[in-house]
Amino acid sequence: MRAALFAGPRRIEVGEQPDPVILEPTDAVVRVTLACVCGSDLWYYRGQSPHDVGAIGHEFVGVVEQIGSDVRSFSDGDLVVAPFAYSDGTCPNCRAGIQTACLDGGFLGGGGLGGQAEHVRVPLADGTLVKVPEGDYSDETLRSLLALSDVMGTGHHAVVSANTQPGATVAVVGDGAVGLCAVLAAKRLGAGRIIALSRHPERQALAREFGATDVVAERGEAAIAAILALTDGVGADAVAECVGTADAFATAVAIARPGSTVGYVGVPHGVEVPIDTLFFRNVGIKGGSAPVRAYLPELLGDVLSGRINPGRVFDFETDLEGIAAAYAAMDERRAIKALVRIAAA
Amino acid sequence: MRAALFAGPRRIEVGEQPDPVILEPTDAVVRVTLACVCGSDLWYYRGQSPHDVGAIGHEFVGVVEQIGSDVRSFSDGDLVVAPFAYSDGTCPNCRAGIQTACLDGGFLGGGGLGGQAEHVRVPLADGTLVKVPEGDYSDETLRSLLALSDVMGTGHHAVVSANTQPGATVAVVGDGAVGLCAVLAAKRLGAGRIIALSRHPERQALAREFGATDVVAERGEAAIAAILALTDGVGADAVAECVGTADAFATAVAIARPGSTVGYVGVPHGVEVPIDTLFFRNVGIKGGSAPVRAYLPELLGDVLSGRINPGRVFDFETDLEGIAAAYAAMDERRAIKALVRIAAA
Repeated sequence: MRAALFAGPRRIEVGEQPDPVILEPTDAVVRVTLACVCGSDLWYYRGQSPHDVGAIGHEFVGVVEQIGSDVRSFSDGDLVVAPFAYSDGTCPNCRAGIQTACLDGGFLGGGGLGGQAEHVRVPLADGTLVKVPEGDYSDETLRSLLALSDVMGTGHHAVVSANTQPGATVAVVGDGAVGLCAVLAAKRLGAGRIIALSRHPERQALAREFGATDVVAERGEAAIAAILALTDGVGADAVAECVGTADAFATAVAIARPGSTVGYVGVPHGVEVPIDTLFFRNVGIKGGSAPVRAYLPELLGDVLSGRINPGRVFDFETDLEGIAAAYAAMDERRAIKALVRIAAA
Repeated sequence: MRAALFAGPRRIEVGEQPDPVILEPTDAVVRVTLACVCGSDLWYYRGQSPHDVGAIGHEFVGVVEQIGSDVRSFSDGDLVVAPFAYSDGTCPNCRAGIQTACLDGGFLGGGGLGGQAEHVRVPLADGTLVKVPEGDYSDETLRSLLALSDVMGTGHHAVVSANTQPGATVAVVGDGAVGLCAVLAAKRLGAGRIIALSRHPERQALAREFGATDVVAERGEAAIAAILALTDGVGADAVAECVGTADAFATAVAIARPGSTVGYVGVPHGVEVPIDTLFFRNVGIKGGSAPVRAYLPELLGDVLSGRINPGRVFDFETDLEGIAAAYAAMDERRAIKALVRIAAA
């Protein structure tokens, strides 16, 4: 099969790989139809986080092609969404809804489990994959289903972790796909006011389409001042930090009102937590690697009903052979999120 | 009047001070009947945090003696409990229940507002003090009212910040008065299992009296292993960190199950937040300087009904002239919490 291969920083190649096969009775092999490039893939691409040479990519939808003898929930031909982590669904952490901490689980994308490929082996298929009801779906719907594999669930996790309440003022730091999905998730949870921090006109427009009521284009201290001015001088009721850099984290803490929580989902890079500031302002931080699997059923229902359309974040498209251009477009921020069309469903 | 005076590390003196007077129309002057020494006073005593030379102490109950012309809620002779922070009760942060972040507020204990004294001026009296209904209270009840000025509300804040739910397994790090009150607060909130970390037999006994179902006497890695063994290998549903040291914080994070929150109320000293660990385990941290004022009405009701008796933490007693011995007893951990009897109510 053909697969994207990480060959080192800024070197995404496409090459021939052995077709994956069932190794464990709980495995499924999925024929990927749509995949995409994640903001977290850029950490590897930019050399800011290590990645094994070889298979890469952890966001995809596809069709079940083979199942192991212990797989009960799927049959060949089922359309499925894969969250970026695999999980057994039965351990104490899965039962608590934190599948990304599954005692038997792990992450797709590495260890030979690359989703930017024609086929992928998915461990613990019953606990991991989510079946999409049979139907004749539009490309728009399929793109939104693809967004459920990571960015929509991750943005949702940010606002859930921030304890977003109906009517609340929510501020979202980060105008990447996750940040924009956090705006959409905040709207879906009934936020009364949603402040998006974004300097890019096209991202500002999508933020507004997703529900942002206010856009702050400033950065750093000026952004903080602007948001305090919008919020009685005290800050937002809930803050979603969707970047992971030190600057973004510091901004998020500074605009969180006393008693509120910063929900953070950007993989921390160089973040130093200002514990004294948090303490004296009673601001919490909560979040992490999003348990997308926990949220998939409810979000899937809302995609299929047309209530949310997170696939709008895809503004760049290529095929597998052109995937290096997808990485470059995201790296250079020419694209919010790049879709990779692998095969027809 | 006589007052305790901070004269430098390990130097608590008692001296003559001018009687406080009304300076602002929102002030009240309280004649202190019972005061006590706080674990946070020990940071100053030990030279680990700076403190102004002069008045000290922020936990007391007493009788209103004078009120400013704008004070509406109190009359001379009212028995009142003072939380350790003063607050206007009307700013956005007070209305949100975070009176310790009052935009017009501050902390008692410094700036001439010492509570380990015969009299104290309390700014913003209407927003700060809480009146105890008229009654003929036992010394036991008065001691429990004194505990509401800080430690009980602070322990409560730890378990509330940790999002303690009925039936939950709660672990409490710290067997000082705040930690013991956190045990009591967890019990009051309906925790199903309460694990107290304590090496001291008399504190273990009080923890059990307050509701601890399990006591872990180990420290560090051994404590972590013991608690994981008690909790399905994944950790507690909620963790209260009631110390503030780096070791205590690290233990708290390590015993928090994925998806849970560490509620922390110990003033952080040398704490470095392990953001990567928090991220990959989806463990939150929340807490800070407890808005005791927000909790006082409900906790006061429970003290008066006899449902809780946090005054049990006082196991050392002296008068104002002997207060240096109270500091020493707490510093040397001979006392859990030292009461200072100033005058009869």
